Amino acid sequence: MLVLGIDPGTAITGYGLVTDRGEGSVAVAHGVITTPSDLPLPDRLVMIQRELSAIIERYRPDHAAVEELFFNKNVRTALSVAHARGVMLLTLAQAHVRIFEYTPLEVKQAITGSGRADKRQMQQMITLLLGLDQIPKPDDAADALAIAVCHLHSAGIAALE
Amino acid sequence: MLVLGIDPGTAITGYGLVTDRGEGSVAVAHGVITTPSDLPLPDRLVMIQRELSAIIERYRPDHAAVEELFFNKNVRTALSVAHARGVMLLTLAQAHVRIFEYTPLEVKQAITGSGRADKRQMQQMITLLLGLDQIPKPDDAADALAIAVCHLHSAGIAALE
Repeated sequence: MLVLGIDPGTAITGYGLVTDRGEGSVAVAHGVITTPSDLPLPDRLVMIQRELSAIIERYRPDHAAVEELFFNKNVRTALSVAHARGVMLLTLAQAHVRIFEYTPLEVKQAITGSGRADKRQMQQMITLLLGLDQIPKPDDAADALAIAVCHLHSAGIAALE
Repeated sequence: MLVLGIDPGTAITGYGLVTDRGEGSVAVAHGVITTPSDLPLPDRLVMIQRELSAIIERYRPDHAAVEELFFNKNVRTALSVAHARGVMLLTLAQAHVRIFEYTPLEVKQAITGSGRADKRQMQQMITLLLGLDQIPKPDDAADALAIAVCHLHSAGIAALE
């Protein structure tokens, strides 16, 4: 199974593709979709839709794992990201990719076994779990890989139940 | 000029088409896009995209006037509406409809001259301004007509400046 993890943002959206192969998870690709902040929001949404469509078409993931919004910090930023996230859910649904959603806490717990892991610990664990030589860059892409691995673990556990 | 006013929502989105003809504004059509609350959000977003596309294709508006989100009440609801609103902005931008955004306060002031008008006063003014026999139903459609009239007034004022 190929999973597309997505860490949604308006300016920068991380994506990471992870598949399960016998002994563990393997990273297939990762990167970011970026949009310029001086462009009006509707144009940025068009860019996000276009780039996400291209990623789906290229890799044809079976499932998508999309991080839920964390809105404790700044409501205005969260609302802007929610616009972009809506476009991502639409794009995935139109491409018939099954969508699963995880909170940041669920992702942390799935990767490190603890909800209190910091960013650095998360990145080290994801590097280890995927057998990579170095921490995936940028941070948003590493986060997206973590979301994809979280889903593979959850899906694996669900299959055993 | 034909303006498509939109009052965004996840469960119910009001739309109203208004054109300017010599002596005043005329309502061309109004209604709502509804989605069932028991459907997953991605499926609801697909429905919103499809129905809004059909409205754009049928009426071919020159401009769209979309209400900005008012998020004082419930952040969770606002985030859900923001997902839907992102899909609406995407759909309009992909159809090359020019997008303008107004706050609820700007709409109230444009229609009644006061930011303190209540819903009933707004509806009576919009009925009067559009020369309708009765208050447009449902409320979301009346709101969308008000947003469209607000844009026609603003665009008219901008043209005189």
